[in-house]
Amino acid sequence: MLTEFRIIEKYFKRPVPNDVVGIGDDGAILPIANGEERLVITTDTLVEDVHFSKKTSPTNLGHKALAVNLSDLAAMGARPQYTLLSITIPTANQNWLKQFADGFWNLADKHSVCLIGGDTTRGPLSITVTAIGQVTNGLFLKRNGAKAGDDVWVSGTVGGAAVGLLYKEHRDTFFCSNTWSRFEQFLDTPTPRVDLGQAISGIATSAIDVSDGLSQDIDHVLRLSDVGADIEYFQIPCETELKRFRNETKIRNLMLSGGG
Amino acid sequence: MLTEFRIIEKYFKRPVPNDVVGIGDDGAILPIANGEERLVITTDTLVEDVHFSKKTSPTNLGHKALAVNLSDLAAMGARPQYTLLSITIPTANQNWLKQFADGFWNLADKHSVCLIGGDTTRGPLSITVTAIGQVTNGLFLKRNGAKAGDDVWVSGTVGGAAVGLLYKEHRDTFFCSNTWSRFEQFLDTPTPRVDLGQAISGIATSAIDVSDGLSQDIDHVLRLSDVGADIEYFQIPCETELKRFRNETKIRNLMLSGGG
Repeated sequence: MLTEFRIIEKYFKRPVPNDVVGIGDDGAILPIANGEERLVITTDTLVEDVHFSKKTSPTNLGHKALAVNLSDLAAMGARPQYTLLSITIPTANQNWLKQFADGFWNLADKHSVCLIGGDTTRGPLSITVTAIGQVTNGLFLKRNGAKAGDDVWVSGTVGGAAVGLLYKEHRDTFFCSNTWSRFEQFLDTPTPRVDLGQAISGIATSAIDVSDGLSQDIDHVLRLSDVGADIEYFQIPCETELKRFRNETKIRNLMLSGGG
Repeated sequence: MLTEFRIIEKYFKRPVPNDVVGIGDDGAILPIANGEERLVITTDTLVEDVHFSKKTSPTNLGHKALAVNLSDLAAMGARPQYTLLSITIPTANQNWLKQFADGFWNLADKHSVCLIGGDTTRGPLSITVTAIGQVTNGLFLKRNGAKAGDDVWVSGTVGGAAVGLLYKEHRDTFFCSNTWSRFEQFLDTPTPRVDLGQAISGIATSAIDVSDGLSQDIDHVLRLSDVGADIEYFQIPCETELKRFRNETKIRNLMLSGGG
């Protein structure tokens, strides 16, 4: 099976005009905003049983579907402005829809994001959100800007969502404490770093949304920037409860390879 | 079950700024293009067993997923420029992907549309395309501009896709001739009226992409424009082979209520 990366490279990636940033970063950058502004656009799909389980609450799903896209805009240094929501649902359960909309709007309102369109269709549950923002020309953050000598920073901690998933699926067999249920929040209601992304635009040389795990995502930055990095494992920010387990292989793998 | 229209109205439609055209037209119009230009954006999802059958060739599906979106841009009078492709597939079958990409690129190249991003995920087959274009301010075509005294025009003929679907699914029991197989093209490889949409922008008072059938779609225009219309059924353009069957209830229903 081809990875997502290879599928896109092989069949869908083609040269784009010089003033466009196309496939291969957290979002695309288009030269069609006012004056010195540039338009940034990104899209992400969440599929049931792949990106979330049947147990995920509709409120959390509404939040997450938007959050993962705002997170991509943040990683470009962009201010989110507009969004499109395409929702495919098996049946139009009103209670489900109301909760989903609550989760979606709660986050949208927090960032003054305006829902301008979308599509509603019947079928196996999946959500595709497209998010649109703007960034001043020259201030956007791409994956390929890292320079030798740069420091590597992460926002928050890493591995929380992966521990949350482990807890959700294997809490009976897992060695963790019951209090670890709070890790589910990293999985279900991730916080897009919208303000931080804008704050570091023009300061950071490069940025990426950590979604596939720290080691894989930093590898994208390094490869595209043609640099290397030394990462001190014990210096990586991690949640307090995880600190004393950092030598356990399982926790180490989750911190380095777990998403978000 | 709520209709798509009611779901969107109830849970997802909220007021938007004055300079934005949001949910309720073929696409959204945003005030973030250069000078007098406006950005037009639209998205449509195609789900297997809902919008297309398992028998649909991947080449046709690649064409159709883009075509339905270009058709929405055309109905706004916009020039298509960029597209995002989110594809959810059960397995990454290379032969399938190659054919899908062929169909997609063949149409994209015809209209110089640049693929700038997307998402590839595993799951039940569905395709969400987002298309972006531009139109000069004041020249876009909305659904609410029709005036008393206007003529009603359609591009091409109506009912062809519906007859194509009937032929595909019930050819053994259907009273039509075997030569009617050509109607499948209206269903599988619809032609977006990209040039026509731009040609009539500034001339037509209103426009809509006919996707749910002539009577339902013209009703959107009439309701939003607060006007009525007299349609002479026998004056509606229809394919030659269908003309002598126009009094049959089945064909009449397909012409008036069948998609595109």
